[in-house]
Parts: sequence; structure tokens; C-alpha cells
Amino acid sequence: MASTTNHTPPLLDLTIDNITENVVRINSQSSNARLNYLMERLVTHVHDFARETRLSTHEWMATIEFLTKTGQMCTDVRQEFILLSDILGLSMLVDSIDHPKPPNCTEGSVLGPFHTGDAPHLPIGSSMSTDAAGEPMLALCTVSDSSGRPISGVKVDIWETDSSGHYDVQYASRESPSERCVMTSDVDGGFWFKAIKPVSYPIPDDGPVGKLLQLLNRHCWRPSHMHFMFEKQGLDPLITTLFIRGDKYETSDVVFGVKSSLIIDLGKVDEETAAKYGVPVGALLLRHKFVLASTEETEKLRDKNAMEAMERLGLKTKLIDHLPVPDLD
Amino acid sequence: MASTTNHTPPLLDLTIDNITENVVRINSQSSNARLNYLMERLVTHVHDFARETRLSTHEWMATIEFLTKTGQMCTDVRQEFILLSDILGLSMLVDSIDHPKPPNCTEGSVLGPFHTGDAPHLPIGSSMSTDAAGEPMLALCTVSDSSGRPISGVKVDIWETDSSGHYDVQYASRESPSERCVMTSDVDGGFWFKAIKPVSYPIPDDGPVGKLLQLLNRHCWRPSHMHFMFEKQGLDPLITTLFIRGDKYETSDVVFGVKSSLIIDLGKVDEETAAKYGVPVGALLLRHKFVLASTEETEKLRDKNAMEAMERLGLKTKLIDHLPVPDLD
Repeated sequence: MASTTNHTPPLLDLTIDNITENVVRINSQSSNARLNYLMERLVTHVHDFARETRLSTHEWMATIEFLTKTGQMCTDVRQEFILLSDILGLSMLVDSIDHPKPPNCTEGSVLGPFHTGDAPHLPIGSSMSTDAAGEPMLALCTVSDSSGRPISGVKVDIWETDSSGHYDVQYASRESPSERCVMTSDVDGGFWFKAIKPVSYPIPDDGPVGKLLQLLNRHCWRPSHMHFMFEKQGLDPLITTLFIRGDKYETSDVVFGVKSSLIIDLGKVDEETAAKYGVPVGALLLRHKFVLASTEETEKLRDKNAMEAMERLGLKTKLIDHLPVPDLD
Repeated sequence: MASTTNHTPPLLDLTIDNITENVVRINSQSSNARLNYLMERLVTHVHDFARETRLSTHEWMATIEFLTKTGQMCTDVRQEFILLSDILGLSMLVDSIDHPKPPNCTEGSVLGPFHTGDAPHLPIGSSMSTDAAGEPMLALCTVSDSSGRPISGVKVDIWETDSSGHYDVQYASRESPSERCVMTSDVDGGFWFKAIKPVSYPIPDDGPVGKLLQLLNRHCWRPSHMHFMFEKQGLDPLITTLFIRGDKYETSDVVFGVKSSLIIDLGKVDEETAAKYGVPVGALLLRHKFVLASTEETEKLRDKNAMEAMERLGLKTKLIDHLPVPDLD
């Protein structure tokens, strides 16, 4: 049974103690070394979970039903599995692993389930909000590289809640996008827009993930924030969020996305700024300088982190396409 | 941050290294100790998986999409998540953990995704097959307890493929159940029925699980078999399968369900048997004695196995409702 080749092993009389090695072996027949490694780790962890908890058939079936409902809750504008990943801290963890930031770069945060691909491309200076009930806010932002040089031509995706704490996609009556836009940074790396102050809100809690949070005695709130996603050839894509300081959920974000460096203070628009940008004096003012790592900087850091982590695990590893696989040579 | 109470910890600036302990802590607020333990193990394994593979955002998104499609493939008569669990060996493992068998009892096997709740209750001696193309087979079975005493009144669920290797639920045109029935064992613990010889078949491979098997260079076949499920108050439910010896997939069942003790030889019906049961001489004959553990025997063995396993893991554990939780006292 303990064949060291990759030929199909005889799978017979599998027990609690030998099933894992056998399932791993039959899942190691792909020519894709990365897939084989992912499957080996997946099967090992799933089996260890069952063994360490002595998972019952009843609990297993409840899990099957939970996953089924989670999939069936998903639509074009709702991603319940991303929500599940978010509330388990997995989304935040994967972002941290895949997009490590050099020291002076803007930190990342969770994408969340509300990004859409249909936001309108607006010229700099536009208003991204149509919500008259929102508290007006002017946002003046810049993008630079890690050595402080402005970067022009960066595609910036921006999205936020309306004044009631809902994203446009949460309305069944949605006909077109609102409270979201795409802009492109100008020659000085600048982009500015008119918006409203985002408010704290509960993540959708009418599905399986909401029920799980209830079972766990957890609230389902996120502190008020505005999402940003930056993309340009040669730059590591940055998915991040700015949080408005002082929110009551600042230290208990249900999706674990808050970082001190991303909490900002809002100012007030003075007379000069009001005249320059065509907004009322006293409106809220968000100023932020985003600093983006290059693809090269991120890849170098990611590779270094990966090799160090694998070494700590005692695994002899090589990188293929910047992702670790066991080094069997 | 390292509060030892269960008050909500401040969740801020979570990193690759500290996110797990914090997510575990916020998921430990339920009064249900078992749920807290399951979540602790789940989060730890999911996070370790991401850390040990340095899971990329791209791979994470592919997984989200895979799980979503798996949920959306499920219908009243198709359970793609059970199929996924089956091909990862998890179903077999959970059955082994939750339904350990005393030495002389019939071993268990996977339930699979094709059991239904609508099989007709047929009197002993009925035919469960309407497939005229199938090879006729007479099945003569008994049920006894672990000390050999016949057990009457056991509800026996039986299901198999038709002669083309399909279960009834795989036909869009299905109007009523076929190749399945429920019987009740008689005063001598006996039950017998007319059926057809089951044939090997591919599990449904037109969904996400089939695509995964392809990627893994695995075939999707099960050796020919007949499913049995036994239930009676006071007995540990037995879900098992009899496999017909000599099938080409006998040692490579895609769902890891084959055990030597469950592989049977078919005989031929002799003249006396033919006359007694009203079947043709020379028809195939399946004879089997099923031996069932009592609820008490299984619980005792399960508890013992659980405590030993927890001890091997170095965990101080107590059992609540026969399921382990950390013993924090």
C-alpha cells in the first residue's frame, strides 16, 4: 500500500488512520505541482478537522446543508461565500499573504461582497453620490509610488454605502449603479470627487452567514468606511478601505478589516477649498495620500515571506510562478 | 489584546501571525461549548491552510467560485456537496468516526448522494426493479445483533442502479421511484427481494466535482454495488454497501467506500431455491448476513475512541452528548 510511486494505489479497507495518506496519493496525479500541493494540504486539514473534533454524521450533514444554502444564496449581486470567508477572517488573511506591503505603502483591507464591475467611469471632480440625504463630503486624494513619485493613469474604483447604510446592489429595484464610480488619477497622481459620509452598516444577515453570526453571538456590523481599489500596469493592485475615526464598531469590524493606518480624521472644507472645488464651506473633507507598491516590490516581498514561512514549517520548498510547492528533487 | 476573558477583544491591525487567535476568540462567545470547539478547529485549519500554501487571491477567488457553483448545482435530487465530501474521503472518514463497529459487526460505507426519502415500502419477497434489461438477481438476507440473535422489525432501505448504471433520480423524466424500496425484517430477522445485478457507474461528472476529478486526473467510477441502510430503535443506524467481487474499479472506488468484508460473491439459484422463491433456476443469488451493533455498543466504542484520540492529540477533553469539547476546568 505504501507505494512511493504515483501509480494509483489500491484503495481498500480505508480506516480513520490510513485514509488521509491514500486520498492524498490519489489526488497527486496531476502534472500541476501546485494543484497537488493545494490538494494535499486541503485533504490533510479537512481530515484532521474531522478527526480532532470526532465530527458526527449529524454535524457533517448540517455543514453540507449550510454550504448548500450559502451557494444558493449567491446571485449576480450577492456573494454569500465571500461573506463567509470575510467573517472567518480568511479574506483578510489571504490579502495579507498575497499583497504584502513594503513599510511605507498603504495597507490593504477586504474587498467585501459589494464591489461590482458596472461602476461608471467619471471625470475627476464628479459627484459619485445621488443620495441627497447623505452628509456631503469632499475627497481630495493622491496616488504615489513607494518613493513618493506621483503616479498618473491609475484606475481607481471607489464604492460606499448610501446614507442609510446600504450599497446600491442591496436594493431589488436597482436599475443602475450609484454610490460607486471609477476615476483615473491625473498627471500629478491626483483624483478628487464629491461623495457623502459613509455610515456603519450591518452586513446582509438574512442568509446562512447571518444565522451563523447569530449562533456565535457576534454582531454583524462594519464601521463606516469607503472602499478603494487601484490598478495600473506595473503596480501591485491595492484593495483597501478608509475608516472614519470614532465609529462605535472601529475595534469590532465583523470582517476584521480595520487597520490603524487606515483610520482617518475628516476635516472641514475652508473658504479657499470651497471656492476651488465648488462645494459648500464647512462640508466634510477627506484628504488621503495612497502609496502603492510596484509589482516587482510586492513579488519580491511575497517570495521572501513565502520561503521564510515554508522554512519555519520545515518544508523544503521551491517557488513556481511565485507560489510554493514541495521541492522533491 | 491577549485577554483571557471572553469579552470581545479589540480587533485591529490583524496580521498573518495574530489574526487566527483573534478570530478564534471572537468566535468563542457562544454558550455552546461544542460549537465553540468546532469553530476553533475550523478557523485554525482554514487559516493554516492559507498560510501553509500562501494561498493567492486568484486561487481564493477560484475556490469561492467553485463552492458557489457546487451549491448552485444542488437540487432536491442532486447533492453536489455530498459528492464533493465523498471524493475527498471525508464522508467515509466521518462514517468511520461516528459509527465505529464492534469486531463482528457489518462495516459501514458511504451514503452517497442518491438516497431518497420516497422509496415505496414493499412486502418481503417483492421485486424492487422494473428494469427488464437488468440481469435478474435474488437477494436473501438476514439481520442479527452482535451476538447472533435475529432482529425483527428492522427498517431496511435498499437502492441500486438500473442496468445502464443510473439511479432513478438521474432521469429528468422521473415520475416515481424505481430500483429502490424499503422493507421490514421478519420475525427471523430475514428479508428477501428480487432485484437486478447492479453495475459499475460514473458518479455525475457534469458539475464542479466532475471538473475537479478531471483536473486531478482521477476517474469518476464506482464499482458495482447495492446500498443498504438499517434503522430500528436501540440499534446504531447502519449505512453500508455490498460490492460485487471482480469489478474493475474494486480497488479504485472514486468515493473510497470499498472494504474487503463488504465484497461478496454472487451465487446461482438452484432448483430448490428457484421453486421456493419463484425465480428462474440459474438466476444470480446474493446471500448476506448483516450484523448490527446496538446504540449502546456503538456509543461506548465511539466514546472510548474519542477520548483516546483526544489524548493522543494532547488535549484535555470531556464529552458532552458523546462529543468532545476541551475540558477547561
